[in-house]
Amino acid sequence: MITVGPEKLARFARDVLLKAGTTDGQASATVRAMTHASLHGIDSHGFRLLGYYAEGLVRGFVKKEPNVSIARPRKAAVLVDADGGLGHFPSFLAMEEACAIASQLGIGMAAVKNSTHFGAASAYTICASEAGYIGFLACNSGALVALHGGTAAFHGTNPISFSAPLRGKDPFLLDIATSAMSWNKMLEHREEFGDLPEGVLLGQHGDFSDVAEDSVLAPLGGENFGYKGAGLAGMAEVLSAMLTGMNLSFEEDGKEAGPSKLGHFMLAIDPKTFIGREAFEERLTSYLGAIASTATENSRVYAAGGPEWEARADRMERGIPVTATAQKEMAAAGERFGIPFPS
Amino acid sequence: MITVGPEKLARFARDVLLKAGTTDGQASATVRAMTHASLHGIDSHGFRLLGYYAEGLVRGFVKKEPNVSIARPRKAAVLVDADGGLGHFPSFLAMEEACAIASQLGIGMAAVKNSTHFGAASAYTICASEAGYIGFLACNSGALVALHGGTAAFHGTNPISFSAPLRGKDPFLLDIATSAMSWNKMLEHREEFGDLPEGVLLGQHGDFSDVAEDSVLAPLGGENFGYKGAGLAGMAEVLSAMLTGMNLSFEEDGKEAGPSKLGHFMLAIDPKTFIGREAFEERLTSYLGAIASTATENSRVYAAGGPEWEARADRMERGIPVTATAQKEMAAAGERFGIPFPS
Repeated sequence: MITVGPEKLARFARDVLLKAGTTDGQASATVRAMTHASLHGIDSHGFRLLGYYAEGLVRGFVKKEPNVSIARPRKAAVLVDADGGLGHFPSFLAMEEACAIASQLGIGMAAVKNSTHFGAASAYTICASEAGYIGFLACNSGALVALHGGTAAFHGTNPISFSAPLRGKDPFLLDIATSAMSWNKMLEHREEFGDLPEGVLLGQHGDFSDVAEDSVLAPLGGENFGYKGAGLAGMAEVLSAMLTGMNLSFEEDGKEAGPSKLGHFMLAIDPKTFIGREAFEERLTSYLGAIASTATENSRVYAAGGPEWEARADRMERGIPVTATAQKEMAAAGERFGIPFPS
Repeated sequence: MITVGPEKLARFARDVLLKAGTTDGQASATVRAMTHASLHGIDSHGFRLLGYYAEGLVRGFVKKEPNVSIARPRKAAVLVDADGGLGHFPSFLAMEEACAIASQLGIGMAAVKNSTHFGAASAYTICASEAGYIGFLACNSGALVALHGGTAAFHGTNPISFSAPLRGKDPFLLDIATSAMSWNKMLEHREEFGDLPEGVLLGQHGDFSDVAEDSVLAPLGGENFGYKGAGLAGMAEVLSAMLTGMNLSFEEDGKEAGPSKLGHFMLAIDPKTFIGREAFEERLTSYLGAIASTATENSRVYAAGGPEWEARADRMERGIPVTATAQKEMAAAGERFGIPFPS
């Protein structure tokens, strides 16, 4: 495994995306989201997706020059039409609009329609917290995850992300798949450790060495409580796909690159709404402090986001680790356009 | 185990609450919430809590005649002050106010402060969906659940509930503790089955027969993915306690009845905001239909809420099952005021 500086990877990714035909604004947003994910240790949703995005653009599943537009159907609600382009640009836009509404009304709701893969959900909730707001995001994705008690792929890994701001500090940051593990993380974990924890894949494919074409992820909660993960995945379907009229997860292929019609859902909440900013931050500081005080030398206990901030510190200093598989995939995406992978 | 008609239990509970000194409006709301829970199979949060509520009123931890008030600090946000009374009345009020705002703006946000235990979260999200709105609720509660990797009680069972309406049909309904199991459900399960699923209690107390004074629940997600349940519990802390300046879970006792200072958080979303009501309902109907079609004789697969609707149909017909323990506790609450348990 090599490490590469984030700036080098960002420049490389940007060059590839531009050569693949998308616009400057689109490429910048996608690189911003990939940099976020890779810096914060979410490698599954970082630069390793470059080849996937480039392929979508080249093969025409993703529109190169979409006409992204904004409507405001209700006073507290904004709808961004991604027009079939990359999901990152319209998603940053949607969260910015949600924050602008929250500054007026206390809360703002934004949805994106006609969108495609947008990377790591926390890129957008962090964006809200950097602007001083609580961010919430839910999204569905192509089918990969069984229902509780089911055996076929039904839900996507349908992420939920949530971020709460603290001035001068890193925010509380949650970013989880509602399956036990996301598909990309599962593949990555297998590559790195040659093993998978129990309860990640279902039944006949529970053995890691046996990840097959028809393998299906288990919902969060395991054998007894998988209805909770499945229910949270359903909540994500309602908010992202049903509110916007987009595809349900089972109407999207979770494994093969192809045409996509996704919705995303976001909220921004002004943390000073009910008791003022200071009092809110006192509570958040108490919470984070109490968690920090329970950690011992032998047991690391984190608030949500803790591992991400550690990863960022490490990677800002030492660069972003790139696995052999990820390097191979990214290099192939570059070669297509005569762009060498940075070393 | 006996069964008792819901009307009989409701009348009994109402009489007890009034004798315990609370007002007519408070008692009605509490009975409404308990009836909801017991009818929908959520016995852990139904009539069995009557004794707990009555004790709070009698011992003065819960104010008998609170002065519940409503403020609207922002255009899209309402804050209900429960003034230390029972949590049910101000929570129904908050969700109604959130719906009223959603009808104007597309989304409405409501918080309750100075509150106490409010029963089952889904009582309030169903209330939103009966009015035609998507309902969301998050709440913290007294410490009972460890952090991921931790051993002491830190979070409450911090429920998340979500409901999406379908005219003429039962809504999609999620209502989950962010621990593997709620405390009351764990006690109930042990009483009914004499056994507990793996991963419910932590470490040294993992044996059901060994539920001890210092037993601690595990977060949803088990040994490997408990950071997801803990993160969702943290989200509930931010929304309910931090936004309102109320107690964090570790500042509340999860096991002993005592003074309480809780916040609750709710959202109502107008489902017609982005694409109209018909189109939204077509998507929800497709989703529910696809789940129903995967169920076979040998494997029951449900959308969130499915088991609740089955329980309700059964209990409307046959009455509400009351375990020996619950009967004993309720009868004791009645005896205090000379009110016989219904038979």
